[in-house]
Order: sequence, then C-alpha cells, then structure tokens
Amino acid sequence: MPEALEGFEPLFNPRSIAFIGATRNKAKWGFMILSNILLGGYKGKVYPINPNEDEDILGLKVYPTVYSLPESPDLAVIVIPQSAVSQTIKECVDKRIKASLVITSGFAEVAGEERKRAEVEMVEIARKGGMILVGPNSNGIASTPSDLNILMSLPLPPFRKGSLAITSRSGSVGTSVLRRSIAYNIGFSRYASNGNEADLHIEDYIEYFGEDPQTKTILAYTEGIQQGRKFLEIATKVSRKKPITMLMSGVTEAGARAARYHTASFYYGRESTYQAICKQAGIIRANDIAELFNIGASFLAQPLPRGRRVAILTMGGGWGVVASDTCVKAGLEVVELPDETYKELNRFLPWWWSHNNPVDTATGFKWEGCLEALTRCPAVDAILLLTGTGRGVMPIGEIAPAIRELIDQYNKPIILCSETREEEAIKELGQRDLIPYPSISQAVKALASLVSYSEYLASI
Amino acid sequence: MPEALEGFEPLFNPRSIAFIGATRNKAKWGFMILSNILLGGYKGKVYPINPNEDEDILGLKVYPTVYSLPESPDLAVIVIPQSAVSQTIKECVDKRIKASLVITSGFAEVAGEERKRAEVEMVEIARKGGMILVGPNSNGIASTPSDLNILMSLPLPPFRKGSLAITSRSGSVGTSVLRRSIAYNIGFSRYASNGNEADLHIEDYIEYFGEDPQTKTILAYTEGIQQGRKFLEIATKVSRKKPITMLMSGVTEAGARAARYHTASFYYGRESTYQAICKQAGIIRANDIAELFNIGASFLAQPLPRGRRVAILTMGGGWGVVASDTCVKAGLEVVELPDETYKELNRFLPWWWSHNNPVDTATGFKWEGCLEALTRCPAVDAILLLTGTGRGVMPIGEIAPAIRELIDQYNKPIILCSETREEEAIKELGQRDLIPYPSISQAVKALASLVSYSEYLASI
Repeated sequence: MPEALEGFEPLFNPRSIAFIGATRNKAKWGFMILSNILLGGYKGKVYPINPNEDEDILGLKVYPTVYSLPESPDLAVIVIPQSAVSQTIKECVDKRIKASLVITSGFAEVAGEERKRAEVEMVEIARKGGMILVGPNSNGIASTPSDLNILMSLPLPPFRKGSLAITSRSGSVGTSVLRRSIAYNIGFSRYASNGNEADLHIEDYIEYFGEDPQTKTILAYTEGIQQGRKFLEIATKVSRKKPITMLMSGVTEAGARAARYHTASFYYGRESTYQAICKQAGIIRANDIAELFNIGASFLAQPLPRGRRVAILTMGGGWGVVASDTCVKAGLEVVELPDETYKELNRFLPWWWSHNNPVDTATGFKWEGCLEALTRCPAVDAILLLTGTGRGVMPIGEIAPAIRELIDQYNKPIILCSETREEEAIKELGQRDLIPYPSISQAVKALASLVSYSEYLASI
Repeated sequence: MPEALEGFEPLFNPRSIAFIGATRNKAKWGFMILSNILLGGYKGKVYPINPNEDEDILGLKVYPTVYSLPESPDLAVIVIPQSAVSQTIKECVDKRIKASLVITSGFAEVAGEERKRAEVEMVEIARKGGMILVGPNSNGIASTPSDLNILMSLPLPPFRKGSLAITSRSGSVGTSVLRRSIAYNIGFSRYASNGNEADLHIEDYIEYFGEDPQTKTILAYTEGIQQGRKFLEIATKVSRKKPITMLMSGVTEAGARAARYHTASFYYGRESTYQAICKQAGIIRANDIAELFNIGASFLAQPLPRGRRVAILTMGGGWGVVASDTCVKAGLEVVELPDETYKELNRFLPWWWSHNNPVDTATGFKWEGCLEALTRCPAVDAILLLTGTGRGVMPIGEIAPAIRELIDQYNKPIILCSETREEEAIKELGQRDLIPYPSISQAVKALASLVSYSEYLASI
C-alpha cells in the first residue's frame, strides 16, 4: 500500500472511533456530531468519552478517558474546550491512536500569541506520537465507503457513494459543495474540512486522493498555500492521474485579511503566483463555489475531448447564438460541419432547418438522431446540448440514458445545459454521473475545462 | 401621451384582438396560442378568424376574414402559413387595425431571396397603413397590466404583475428570462419577442418601456443592432430614467452566423463596438441569460449605492473570504469598518469574533443586530449578506421582511446570496422584489452593476 494511502486509512476508514467530548446536551456539538455519526450508518465501534457523564449517550456506553477504552481506536474526534485539547492529544498519542480530527476552534485564527502557541504545541505532540491531525477549526470529515459522517452540518440526507473527493480549508465552502453534490445526486468518496491546517495541509489530502482507488476527481478549496514547493510537487504528480479543480481564495488584500481571521492563513498568495502554479501543475481553476462543483463534476462521466471542435445542438435558436459566442470567447471552435453530417441531419429535421452549427432543432424534431449524428461526426470533439427546461418534446429524464450511452459509445463528452428543476430528471442524470448545467456560461466553462485538462495531459 | 406610449397602446393594451389562423386542432399553434390568451385571463374581446372553420373555437364565434368583424380590433395576431401573411397584413390595414404580431416564421431567416422579399413587402404594407408589426418569427408578447399572454410557450402559471420589462430578439432567451421571473416570483410588466425585427426594432421597444409607467427596469437581448445611431440615441435617453440591462449576442463570427440563421440578423457587431455603445449609453452588460435576469432584477428593490464601499455579513467564514476576493476583483472596496461599528457589533457577537470586514457571525448570533449596524454605518454604501442555505438560525422567509425594511429605512442596497431552494422562502423574497442570488459571483456582479449604473448617472 502506498504511504499516503496507509497513513490516511485510520482517518477515512477507521475501524473504531473515540468521540472525546460526547454529551447528552442536544444543543451542543458534542451531541450533534455524535448523532450524525450514528445517523450516517457507521458500522465500526464508537466510544463516547466524557469524565462527567455516566449514563449512556445515544445508547452508547460512556468512558471517562481514552485510557479507559478496551482498545486503541483508529480515530479520535475532539470536540472539547480549546484549553483542554493539547492534554487530550497527549492522551490519544499515549493510547496509540493514529488519527485525530480536531473540531475545536479558538486556536491561531483568534488573536493572541498564546493561542498560536497552543496550536503549535498540539501539533508537536501529535507528530512526535506518529498521529495525523485534521484541523483544528475543522467542520469534520466524511467518507462514503465507510459510511462515515463526522460533520457539524445540520442533518443531511444519506450520502450517495461516488468518486468525487473534496478537501476544503473552509467548512462553509466545503458544505456548499457537499450540498450541491446532494442536490445533483452526485456521489462522493471523501470529504475533509481542513480548518487551520496545523498538521495536515491541503497537499496531503490531495496526495491521498491521488492514491485513493475510490476517488476519480478532486475538488479543493484553499485560502493560502503554506508549503508552495511541496504543494506544487504533489499537485503536479497527482494531476497526471486525476483532475484537480481548485478554488483559490485570499488572492486580494481584503481576501487574505479575511482568510487570516477565518483559518489563520498567513500565506498571502498573489494572483500571478496562483496562475503560475495552476499552469505548471495542470490544476483547473474555478472562480466560485458553484463553479468548483460544476467543473469538478464534469470529469466524472465525461471522457476527455481530443480537440476544441464543438457541435451545438439546441432546442432554441437564441440559446445557440449565446452559446456560440460563449464557446468562441472560451477558446473553443464552433466547427463547420461536413456535408455528410448535414445530409444525415436532414433526415431528422424539416427542410427549412438552419443547416449550420449550432443545429437548431426548433420544436424538437427527432433530437435522438441529431445527437447521434453529431456525436459520430469525425469533425466534432465535443457536444453541447441545450434543452432549456427540457419539458415536452425532450424530457430530461428520458434523455439521460441516451446521453450516457452516446458518451460511452463514441467516447466524446456531451455537456447538457438545462434549466430543469424537476427532481426526478436531476436524479436520473446524477445516477449516471451527469449534471444539468444551469447556465450556458457554466456549461461552456465545464467543456473548456475538459479541453484544457486534455491539452495539459497531452503537453507533458 | 408621449408618441412612443401611444403607438404601443394597441399592442400592449389592446381593447380587442383578431386571432388570424385560429384552429380547433390542438397540436397547432393556432390553437395553443389562442388557448394561452384565454387562460391568461384577457378581458377584451377575442375574434378567432379562419375561413375553413365554422364551429366555435374554445367557445368563441369564428369569423371567415377580418373584413367580416363587427369592429376594428386593436391588435391582429397572425399564425398562418408564410405565403399568406402579406395578403393578411393588407386586409388588417384595410380594416384599420393598428398593431400586428406575426408569429409565422420562414421569412428572411430562411435561405432564398423570395422570402426576404416577402418580409420587406409585408413591412411596406404595414407601414403605409400606419400599423406597427412585431416579428415575424416572434414567439409572442405578454403584458400583465392587461392580463395579456400571447405566447407560444407551454402553459405557464399566471404571471405576477410587476415592473420588469423584457424585449428579446430570441423567443427561447426571452422565455428563459420569463421562467426565471416566475421561479423567483418576480413580477413583470411587458414582454416582447422581437423575432426578425422587420418593422419594430429593439430600440423601439426600449423607447416605449422608457415611457411606460408600469416599467421600472428594462431587460433586453439582441443578436445584432440594425440602426446603431438610433439605438444609441434612444438607449442614452432612456437609461437616464431607467436602467437597461442587456445581453448582446452575435459578437463572434460563429455567434453572428448563428444569429443570421436564427433571426435573420445581418448586423455583425464587433465586441469593441458593443463595449463602446454600452459605455456611452450607460447600458449594463450581462454575459449570460441567467445574469441578464439576475442583474436586471436587482434594480427593482435596491436603491443605487452612493459609492463602492461594501460590508460583508456572512454566516460562513469561507464564503466571506471568497466574497472579499470577488468584490475586489469587481472593483468594489471591502471597507475597513469604523471603531464605532465594531463596538456596536460586539453587542451581538461573541468576544472571539473576527473584528474584521467580512463580519463572520459563525453560528449566527443575532444577525438582525449585525445587519442593522452595518446598514447604518456611514462608511458603508452597500451590504452583501451571505446566508448559505439559510436554514436554522437564519431562515430566509423570516429575514425577507427585515431586509426589505432596512433597505427602505437606510436607502442602501442589501444583496442576499443564498443557496436556498425552499419555495416558500423564494416566494417571500419575490413578493418584496428581492431575489436570493444563487452564487457569490452573481451576487457581486449584481452589486457591481448597481454601483456602475449609479456612477454612470452621476457622471452625465
């Protein structure tokens, strides 16, 4: 087993968990997070720890300290007051616990030298004891292969297993991405809220995701990179195997100041530095939280295009015009179709159709035939399919299997832009690792990202 | 009554309508559109016309020709084969009908000189007869003050009356905007799908909306501007009174080619030309259909900010960091707050709060107090409020009245960014002319648009 994989096993696939700071007080995180673990269906043993509670909590036997546990659990979840964390970390190390998740905040992100020192001290103890540490100031982790949900978030529906992995400096940004994956019925593999990154840094998670057989595509959010050289080295290595999509914040003075107070990030990266890093490491850059998910998710089902030549199939003429401009501005080519393809399309469209790319099906004559003709066309590397609400003639739920089949058959991406809000349709798409992009900009951005990642891989 | 207003009266406030091409065949536009008019609750008289039908259609008495009508209707809706349109326009003119809406397509947008000639001929007849003409190749018009819904779209829920007006070269783009206004419960005043703009051009609609007392903000979509000088003159005049937000397509070669086949737009505008036009005329530019609605709608409830100084109030630290960068990149200033405001905020937040702008309420301590303190702060021109899903501590439905009240009391914009999909919450906001911006980028873009329009007005 590669080193990165082995080191993270106790974190993402723990056989048992010590939950330090468990409580029966329903208003406290020590109750809410414990309750999320149980609701998530975690199969391993959970040991609530609290020296002041002697009754069971949520049906589990409570222990006074980690010392009193009948075994060495793989993972310690720490939800106790800040002043007590270092001592607890020491006890966990003594008990040979291999991984810890520090939810507790109030370390280096709060003003005062003392709190910074406490963070450094805590990490020193953990490292000496061979224990990895997530946080502090994390909002939790999740791992669907282990049915693991250690999150501060309000109860979420059961997570769908999948292959999208998320590492986020911020819990709120990470949770926004999670919520989108739930809304679009896209499964994920692992989730980590990195918090202050006192021990494990973003590049460590990325390295692990690179080796993780459950993960196909990586989403990352940073507010500043502490160890630039190491990050670059790891990201360059991983991106050869799996696409990394990143939202990079703290690139303006106001953003960096906000990051400092948020997760104690003192690493003010200039925009130009980030641009250079992304170019060298083949990282796909997102500009917003929504975009981070939209781009990242596009790598799940879509094969990499062999070139920049796009065919647009649209149910509405105006959408085709807007999409043409947007494609060209994004560096894509709205290609002239060969005569043969026009002839084939003629079979499915009325005589007065535009004979142009975008192919405007107007009221939706036989879109299946058009879509297949375009996907098969050798002059086309990728298809942008614009269906509007997709009601009536082109019901999204029905076209989901057709799209997926054509993608697999011809090994070309088909990006669907649709305004549908129908849950059933979205579910059908998600089950096939597809999402309906809610705007033309986002659909084109996703397509352009597939192209640029494909070109990056070809260039190295 | 100003000329523009009077000229458009028969179109948007018709006292009666001749519907030429009515049919009982439910699969035909001549049935579906007529049915939409009746479902929309139009109170005026509707005369179905079809020489080959003698039974009632949808309970209405059918007439063989316009000549046989008992009066001169204000508006003729034309849904008949292309070859018969010119003759029908002539008959409408003979009958002294003042406005016509030509749904029929197959004119200059289809290849062949004959069809171009037919379009020119039709317009000549209309103009000589003093009749204005929408289209051809229009998907319809709507006007909520008259309960008028003459649309090809599948049945839509009843429209909410409001003050947003839409003019769109494309029916599909226009309908997308309409659907958004319905989804966000934002009322509109008038809608026109301009089609090929053979007679009435985009600037004519804009001029009318400028005078229209029902309209407060104008959304426009163009695929090419035919009469640049006239457009510039009218837009410059109107934008002094009402904000004009525009999506301008056909600015690349591929886009222009698509426009030519879509709505016969032969006017290839260069990107630089459009930029110059927007700058001079004070037009706010949107880059996507979603953005056209999002920006346009922001002018409904929001006062114009007096400067670029923004305060960010966030429930999640990471959102605040992302928003800070996004604001700065959009030319806004994430301002240092005065000591007095910090003191006031201290009353509502725990001791360890960040003491920085963005104001991170973390788990949402007394947001009402924070929001009011920031809105009142003299160093702040506008507020960006980031609530995530807004569940739990900050229920969107409840904050809708609070936001609206503070906007009105302090005369400063408060832009809400929220991932909520709860219909009740969205409805509550819409009733106050507010929308929850679905992404930080879109929220900041809306705010930056308010600022730049405000600066434009101050500069002229």
